[in-house]
Formats: sequence, structure tokens, C-alpha cells
Amino acid sequence: MVLVSDVRGVYIAQPSASTNGILQFCRAEYLRMDNKAYLVQMKSTGVHGKTLTGKGMVGNGFHHVSVNGSLYPAKTKSRRQRWEVKPSEMAKNTLNPIRAIVDGMKLTPNPEKPMISLSIGDPTVFGNLPTDDAVLQALKDAIDSQKYNGYAPSVGYLKSRQAVANFYSSPEAPLEAEDVILTSGCSQAIELAINVFCNPGDSILVPRPGFSLYKTLAVSMGIEVKLYNLLPEKSWEIDLQHMESLIDERTSCLIVTNPSNPCGSVFSKEHLQKILKVASKHCVPILADEIYSDMVFPGCSCPSLASLSSDVPVLSCGGLAKRWLVPGWRMGWILIHDRNNIFGSEIRQGLVKLSQRILGACTIIQGALESILNNTPQGFYSNTISFLKSNSEICFNELSSVPGLNPVMPSGAMYLMVGIEMDHFPDFKNDVDFTERLVTEQSVFCLPASAFEYPNFFRIVVTVPEALMEEACVRIREFCQCYYRPPSCDGNDLDQ
Amino acid sequence: MVLVSDVRGVYIAQPSASTNGILQFCRAEYLRMDNKAYLVQMKSTGVHGKTLTGKGMVGNGFHHVSVNGSLYPAKTKSRRQRWEVKPSEMAKNTLNPIRAIVDGMKLTPNPEKPMISLSIGDPTVFGNLPTDDAVLQALKDAIDSQKYNGYAPSVGYLKSRQAVANFYSSPEAPLEAEDVILTSGCSQAIELAINVFCNPGDSILVPRPGFSLYKTLAVSMGIEVKLYNLLPEKSWEIDLQHMESLIDERTSCLIVTNPSNPCGSVFSKEHLQKILKVASKHCVPILADEIYSDMVFPGCSCPSLASLSSDVPVLSCGGLAKRWLVPGWRMGWILIHDRNNIFGSEIRQGLVKLSQRILGACTIIQGALESILNNTPQGFYSNTISFLKSNSEICFNELSSVPGLNPVMPSGAMYLMVGIEMDHFPDFKNDVDFTERLVTEQSVFCLPASAFEYPNFFRIVVTVPEALMEEACVRIREFCQCYYRPPSCDGNDLDQ
Repeated sequence: MVLVSDVRGVYIAQPSASTNGILQFCRAEYLRMDNKAYLVQMKSTGVHGKTLTGKGMVGNGFHHVSVNGSLYPAKTKSRRQRWEVKPSEMAKNTLNPIRAIVDGMKLTPNPEKPMISLSIGDPTVFGNLPTDDAVLQALKDAIDSQKYNGYAPSVGYLKSRQAVANFYSSPEAPLEAEDVILTSGCSQAIELAINVFCNPGDSILVPRPGFSLYKTLAVSMGIEVKLYNLLPEKSWEIDLQHMESLIDERTSCLIVTNPSNPCGSVFSKEHLQKILKVASKHCVPILADEIYSDMVFPGCSCPSLASLSSDVPVLSCGGLAKRWLVPGWRMGWILIHDRNNIFGSEIRQGLVKLSQRILGACTIIQGALESILNNTPQGFYSNTISFLKSNSEICFNELSSVPGLNPVMPSGAMYLMVGIEMDHFPDFKNDVDFTERLVTEQSVFCLPASAFEYPNFFRIVVTVPEALMEEACVRIREFCQCYYRPPSCDGNDLDQ
Repeated sequence: MVLVSDVRGVYIAQPSASTNGILQFCRAEYLRMDNKAYLVQMKSTGVHGKTLTGKGMVGNGFHHVSVNGSLYPAKTKSRRQRWEVKPSEMAKNTLNPIRAIVDGMKLTPNPEKPMISLSIGDPTVFGNLPTDDAVLQALKDAIDSQKYNGYAPSVGYLKSRQAVANFYSSPEAPLEAEDVILTSGCSQAIELAINVFCNPGDSILVPRPGFSLYKTLAVSMGIEVKLYNLLPEKSWEIDLQHMESLIDERTSCLIVTNPSNPCGSVFSKEHLQKILKVASKHCVPILADEIYSDMVFPGCSCPSLASLSSDVPVLSCGGLAKRWLVPGWRMGWILIHDRNNIFGSEIRQGLVKLSQRILGACTIIQGALESILNNTPQGFYSNTISFLKSNSEICFNELSSVPGLNPVMPSGAMYLMVGIEMDHFPDFKNDVDFTERLVTEQSVFCLPASAFEYPNFFRIVVTVPEALMEEACVRIREFCQCYYRPPSCDGNDLDQ
């Protein structure tokens, strides 16, 4: 095996039977598939002078070169002989685990029961949670003004950025317009944040269970994902020791989702401070996914990570999607909370540059943003939260008494995770099998938490109308009662 | 010099004075900076067994390892000792040439003359080209329906994709809904198309002069850009021989912009067929940037590339931005015109996967799309085109008689390129200098065509109100008359 480099990169060359032992070159990216380490020696042709001669070409970026003592990069130029258009590695490596799992499930509901889907994190699907009229009016006003049809700056209108800054600024974490970058949804905010921190080969720390987009984005960019555990028995707090054990010199950022999707958990101030302490000790910046910020049940507080940080710089990602119940509008933002000038102008400039790749959010929504933030009545937010809390309680209370299920009561967001004591459901292989059969028999669809890297749980979206929530719980109970096998009574019982 | 690979990639190791000859490792990406070719030999440690021992670590991904005969990848894990958060290579390599040039210019207008900016390709800035009321009404109807607040599929609503398919389908290039992918503006369409075709190290062919985004995107992704020449003396037709000479086995796609930004040129059917012939010969798919499609002056026809292709697969990128005069709305699309199943399901699936990274366009605009496409009155399009043609003629006629300038009459889009006979303007170093002084003295800002990789030209945006167009031309004439130096009369005249 031989490696060779030219201006375009590093190639690995391999004698191959199909080419009669003539060296075959492919790009060094392919090497990463290979677990072994090799001794490689490298000399400049400037010293040794011997060269390879090009000997034609085959398709798909592979070169044939014959060796006579030393190497020279194949420079022969040749046209393709036949059509072969393949998607890029990045396209192939953009994997959506939810799709991968759901597409593999047989989701044929019981024809005798109407389908109740508790699977999609979209609060608009049932029509029971419309956005506020003030939000819609703001949009119409923006249209009528005719001021928002042209290009905005790629990071958003200054006025709109100022409105977001004003809305989220606090004495502990002050924000100016220049600290805000508007994006095409919170997804693009997360994409830009990961992209500005990480080179291929770097790693990010991601919660397990956690929102699948982090991994989808990171893997497509050649960034390694290290999953740190959340602890269901501690209301999904982070296993800090586990998290810390994953940090090394290539860790480019720590992603913290709070409130959590898929758990609906909300970290206490003390826990957030402990997270910051670990980040501070290892000098790792934080990407705080705070899209569910302020969607916290009464009596529970949810300070932003940045408001508690004295020395850890934070990029906080958010948007209109959840709190204003308009996820399709694709209005997201990054709040830049620097500390001690660690981000400095470089990270800011990096974000600005990345925002220029596709420009940002729709200008009509941007134009409405100031009015949306300032004129949405407080009652709208509190009504949404009351509803989510009430539905969560219904669901939690119902499922708590179902043998074999262990729901975890949320404190915010719009999700509830339910543990399945798989030992007591021997008819099912795993959570995917369990939830698939729940559709087949009861026409209730919950997302198996394997989609969040967390087997033996499923996630319930609690935005469904109350009557459907109750009906779904009744059906889940019926399903579980049908398949539950009580613990055996012998002394070797492992189910305690 | 030594190369070593581990699971994460390929490293180059170099003895360095600063480390007392201890080998220093960095990732193979850095090798690409290096023009030389090296002899590299590679043996598996599995065979040779000898290992390197890790000897600590320094920051920023560099490892120190001592050698004892063979290599073993450094596995020591260590935390960062101090804060060092730097933007990724991709962020640093996302370069916008327009910004780079414009930000470097001293743009201080003459206080005695009001500024006339002919630099930005945004038809909305002067307020003289509003979109049609039907377009605005479609948006309001979409809001009122309350049907478009939730998530759409990442490739867009089926109904909206069907509307685009119907609008652009032709017998020669039929389209179904599944052939349409909706995107966040034409920029994202171009980004997805480049991304699905190209791996790092591949190359794309891009027109010179041409829209700068192609290069911005490609360079940030490690894709090589090869510029093929357009010929101003042939109404900016492609120099086909030059284009063909740039094709090699790593050429992943050919970008054709028609009608052209920055030239305003429109290729004839015959020329398009010749372009397709080259693509066919070399089996290179085409990315057709057709955002200005149908913005063609009366008497000129502009078939889409796909409608002329029997065997070359085409991704055509477009959107609402220009024809409907709403660039800020970020509503773009990719039309997939496969041929002989060359794209097949793989390229389609690749595009779908890439669309899942940030989801697509704003759902309100998507919801309005069918109505926008079907209900915008024909008169709106023709009025826009008449205006652009009239303004182009005013500009062309005025500047044609200015000594030292060579305007090229456009046939569509909203631009006009003007050649500067720099020999006759010895006071100015180049087009940037020329246009900078035009601001300082005449308060007229035209974009120097260096921003499009084409020095000694400047681009005029012809969407400005007629009176301002005329005034701008008068001022340009005055400026040129002031600095023009006629050809000398001796026998060595080089200016003929």
C-alpha cells in the first residue's frame, strides 16, 4: 500500500488484481474507513527525481499509475467514457435516524380504531393549538408595508436582530443586535453553530436521549458524535461524570438541550451550573439548544445557560417554531454570548460568513418579528403552557398505573418519555417492535426512542387534544394489559 | 516526513525544530496546502508490530509522538488547558468576493450629488418595481387559511411541488411533483445541487464572468472551481473549446447560467445545443442556474437547457426571486430533469437527504406558491420585461457613445456589462479603482466586474427608475470625458 499526495490531497494506492497489479489511487478519505494504522514513509520527488508515468484512467476518480521506483502524482487528463453520476459522500452520509426507523416500520393502523399520532413534534397538526392572532396580523402588516420583499442582510435585518436581542437580553447575559444572527429555522441555527466550531475529525458531545438532528448534521460533515447519558431516574439530568469522560482535545463543542426534546425535562439552576463547570474546566464552548426556552410548567424556572455563565462562551439556538407554534415559518436565531472575548471577532465573523452561503430567513417573517415578539399577549404563552402541563399530567397519571410502563413526568417542552420494562413484554423484541404493534392493534403511534439513541422507551407528544390524549392512554393501557407478563416468583427473579 | 492513518483520518508527521525532532502530527487536510509530491511507503503495524509511544499532547489537534521504528496513532486523551475557540476551516473558507472587493473600496459619494447605486441585484430597492398584488394576496390567503404554520416535508408540500412542476413542464422536458424540490431560495437550490454532485477534491466548471456564489459555496466545501470564459464579442457565448479543455475525470458538474448574471446575455438554442454536446461527450451533468428564465426581452427566445437535452441530465435551479420580484422571500427550487435514468434514484435520494439538514422554505410562501404561479397576470411579467429592456437600451445607447467604454447590450435578466478600455484611462489602476472614483466624484456606484472574476469591466443593474438611469449615464459620461486619454498617433500605437 502506498500513499501519495498532490496539490489536491492525499491518495492511497493499492495493487489490485483487476488492474494486473498496477497501482490504483483513490482519495485519502477512503482511508478513514480503515481501522488499521500503517507505517508511511514519504520523500520529496524533488530529492529523488524518479517519476511515475500515467497510464490511462478508469472512472470514478481512480487513477492507474505504474511505479518505477518513486511516485509522481498522476496528471493525465482524460474524459469520462460513460455516464456515472453518484451522490456525494455528504449526501450519502446525511442520515435521519427517525426516518430510518419509521420508514422501516409497518405502520398499518387497526381499521376499527381511528389513528392517533403522538409521534411528530409539530404542535400545529391537530389544529387545537393555533398561533395567536397578533402573530398572524404582524405577518399581514409586514406584507402590506411592501418593505420586506427585497434581500435582507444574510444575518437578518438589523431591526429584527435588535428585537430578538431586546427580547432575550438580561442583566446576566446582555445582548445587542450584533449578538443575534437570524437563520432559516432553528435547524439552520444549529447547523451554523456546529459548522463554525468543528472541522472534520473533531467531535461534539450530544445528549442521549437527544434530538436526532445534531447527529444527522455532524456525521454528514465528518464530525464525530459522542453521546453522553441523561439519567431518567434523576429527571433526565446529565450524567456529568460520563459526559466529562468523553471530552478530549478534539471536542469542539458541548450541545446542551434545555428544556429537552425528547424528555420534556428542565434542568435546575444548580445542574446548569455544574454543566458549566465541566465546560469551563475543559475549555469547551457550549451550543445551547434552547428552542423550548420559556416553555416551562408553572412553578419551574428555566434560566438560560448563558445567564449563569461567567467564563464559558455559549451559542444559544432558538426560534419562533415552538413557543409561537409556527414551526413551518423557518424563523430561527443564534444568540452569541461571548465571555472574556473567547469567541472574539473570529467566531462572529465565521458565523457571518457561513450565513452568506444560502442567506437567511424569509424577509416577511423577519419583518414581522419585532411585532411578534412585542405584541403577542402574555396569555397566549401561558395558555399554551397550561395546556401542555395538563395534558402531560393526564398522560403521566394514566400511564403510571400501567404495569410495565414507567413514564417520566416532564417539566416543560411538549414531550413525555415512557420507559418500557421489556422483560415484562416478551412478545416484543424492542421498543420499535412494541410501538409498531401498538399501531397495528390500537392505532396509536408513539415514536420509539431508538430514534433518539435510547432503546426501551417511547416518546409521546402531548400537544394532542385532551380527549385524544385520554383515549390514547386508554388504548395504551389495553395494549399493555394484553401483553404484560408479571415477574416470575422464583428467587432468580431479575426484574426487581 | 511521515504519514500515519488511524480511524479518524490520515496524518502527516514532521520532525520540527521546536519539538526537538519529535514527530509532530497534523491532519492530512493540511497536506493539500503543499504543492510537492512525495514518495510514501506504508506498512501495516499488524505486520510489523512496532509502535510509537504517545508523549503528551499540545493544543489545537497536534500530537507529539516519539518514533521507535514504526508508528502507532497517538491515543493519549488530554483536556485543553486554555480557551482557544477558532472558526472551522469551512467558515474561514467561505469567501464572498463581492464583499471582499466592496468592503475594500472607499465608497464616499460626492456630497453635491445624490447617490445612485447600480450595484445590487435586488429589483426591489428603488420601489419602482413592486411585485403584483395577486402575489401579495396569495400570501395573505395562505396566512388566513391557517394551514401553513406547521412543518412541511423537507422537500416541500406535494401540492406546491406539483404547482411548480405544472408551471415548468413542457413536452420536451416533462416534470412531475417528484421532480421538484423546494428550497430556501435559489441559493440553497444551488448549494444542494453542488453538494449532491461533488466530493471534496472534485471540480466544477463555472462561467467567467459569473455569479460569485458558485465559487463561494464550492471553495467552502473543498471543491475546485475551474472558470471557463464567456466571449463578450459574441454576446457572452461560452468559449466552448476553453470549457472543454478544463474537463477532466474529477469534473462533477458544469454550471451554466442562462440568462446570465452579470451579463444579461441569453444563449441561442443552437449555442445551448453545443453546450449539451460537450457535456454529453464528457458525461458531465449540468447544473442550470435558470433563476432569470423567462426574463427575456421580446423577440428573443430562451428555451430551458433541459428542453433541448436528450441525454444529459440537468438540475435546473430557479425560484420566485427575480421574475416575481421578491428575492427576500427565499423561495427556490430544483427541477430534476433526468435522462436515461442517469441520476436514478440515488441523486434524487441524495437531494432529499440533503434537504433534511435544515428543512426547506417558509411554509407560508409554499402555501401561496400555487396561487402565485397560476394567478399572477401575464401583464405583470411583460411590464417588468418591457421596463428592463427600455432601461437597458437607454443605458446601452448612452454609454455606446462614451469614448473608452464598451457596453454589451443584454437580451434579458437585469444587468448590463460595460468594458473599460483601461489603456485610455491611465489615471486608474483597474476596474475597482475606476468604479471607486466614479463614486467619489459622481456618486454613481457600479460593481467592478473583478467581483465576477472579470477585470476591466463593470456591471450596471438596470432596475433603477428611468430618470435615475439617464442621470447615471450622464454622470458616467462626464466622468469618462474627464479622464479619457485618446490614442497616441505614433506608429507604435498599441490601442487599435
